[in-house]
Amino acid sequence: MPNAPSDRTRVRRVPQRGQYDRETVEAILDETLISHIGFVHDGHPVVIPTLHARLGDRLYLHGSAASRMLRTLEGGAHVCATATLVDGLVLARSAFHHSVNYRSVVVFGQARLVEPEERLRALELFTEKLVPGRWPEVRPPTPQELKGTKVFELPLHEASAKVRTGPPIDDDEDYELPVWAGVLPLRTVVDPPQRDPRLDPAIETPGHVAEWRP
Amino acid sequence: MPNAPSDRTRVRRVPQRGQYDRETVEAILDETLISHIGFVHDGHPVVIPTLHARLGDRLYLHGSAASRMLRTLEGGAHVCATATLVDGLVLARSAFHHSVNYRSVVVFGQARLVEPEERLRALELFTEKLVPGRWPEVRPPTPQELKGTKVFELPLHEASAKVRTGPPIDDDEDYELPVWAGVLPLRTVVDPPQRDPRLDPAIETPGHVAEWRP
Repeated sequence: MPNAPSDRTRVRRVPQRGQYDRETVEAILDETLISHIGFVHDGHPVVIPTLHARLGDRLYLHGSAASRMLRTLEGGAHVCATATLVDGLVLARSAFHHSVNYRSVVVFGQARLVEPEERLRALELFTEKLVPGRWPEVRPPTPQELKGTKVFELPLHEASAKVRTGPPIDDDEDYELPVWAGVLPLRTVVDPPQRDPRLDPAIETPGHVAEWRP
Repeated sequence: MPNAPSDRTRVRRVPQRGQYDRETVEAILDETLISHIGFVHDGHPVVIPTLHARLGDRLYLHGSAASRMLRTLEGGAHVCATATLVDGLVLARSAFHHSVNYRSVVVFGQARLVEPEERLRALELFTEKLVPGRWPEVRPPTPQELKGTKVFELPLHEASAKVRTGPPIDDDEDYELPVWAGVLPLRTVVDPPQRDPRLDPAIETPGHVAEWRP
C-alpha cells in the first residue's frame, strides 16, 4: 500500500484506516456528489459544500464568478476539499466503541482557474457526473453563461482516504455482555422522478432519468 | 424571517436561499450525523468530518484527546462547522440551470472544552443521537475512557442555513424546449441490521435497532 504523499495528508488518528492509493481516493470522489471546501477568509476558516467532478488526477469545482469562495480560490489560496460517505452506524457493546463506517477523502492544494476554452468541457463533465447521458439532451451553455461561470481544478497529488468498515471492535471482556452489537447499514436511494409542474405532459421520462441510480 | 446574526453568516450567493431562524438551523443539524469541521493549521485550512450532536443552542463535537483537530480547538481556534443534506438532483432544460436540492448549515465560532463532569452527559447525547434508546442498553464509559475523550461545544449564535427546494428554474424561453425537466429525489435508507459475527446467537435484535430509521 502506498505511503502518504506528504506529511499533512498522513492519517494520524487510527492510522491503519489511512489509504493513499489513487484508486481508493478516486472511487470515493466519484461516488460523492459534493466536497466540503475549506479556505481561509480574513484569517478565519470557512467551509462551503459544493458539487465536484473528477477527471484523471484533477478534482473540478465550479460556481458563479461572483462567489466569495471562488474569488478566494482565484487568488491562489490554499484549500482543503473533503468528501465523505457514511456507510453505516456501528453499534458496540460499550458506549465508548460506538462508531460509524465511512469513507472519506481529504485533498490539500491550490486550485487553478480553468482556461475559458476548457470550461465547456468541464461543464459537460459536471452535467454528466450528476446525470450520465444528460449533456446531449439539454440546451448547451451560451457564451454569456460560460462567462458567468468559473471552473477550478485541484490536483490530487496531496490526497488521502480514510476508511472504516466492518463490525464493532469491543474490548475483550465486553464480548460476554448480553448487548446486541453490529452494524446498521445506510444507503442512498432515489425515489421516482418528480416532473417539473411546467413540463409538457407529452414529454415522456427518458431512460437517463428513469434509470438513474446513486 | 430573522436577519443574519453577523456579516459572515449572511448568505451571499442566491441570498433568498438564506435562512436564519433557529428552528431551520436546528432541524438540519439534528437530521445530519456529521459536520465538516474547518480549522486553520500552520496557516492552511483543514476540513475533517466528525460526528456531532445538538442540545439547545450548542453543537457538540467529540473525539480522542490525541486528535490534531481537537488539540487545535482546545487552543481557542476559530472553527467553521458545516453540515449538508443533499435532497435531490435538479434537472433543468439547460445545462447551466442544473442544480441540487439541499439543506446546509454553516456555524462559525470558537469551541469550548466541556468540563469533565459534563462529559458523561455529552457522551450520552452522542450515543442517543446515533441510535435513540441505545444508552441504557450498553456498558457505560469507564473513568479511563472518559479521560481519553474530549468533548467540545460550539455555540449556535453565528449559524445560518441555506436551503434549495422545488423544481428547476429555467430561462423563460427554455420552457418551450422538448427536454424532460424535474427532480430526482434522494433519500437515505437503512438496510437490515448486520449482526456482529461474534454476537451470541441467542441475543435477539432489540427494538431500538430493528426500528431505527434515518
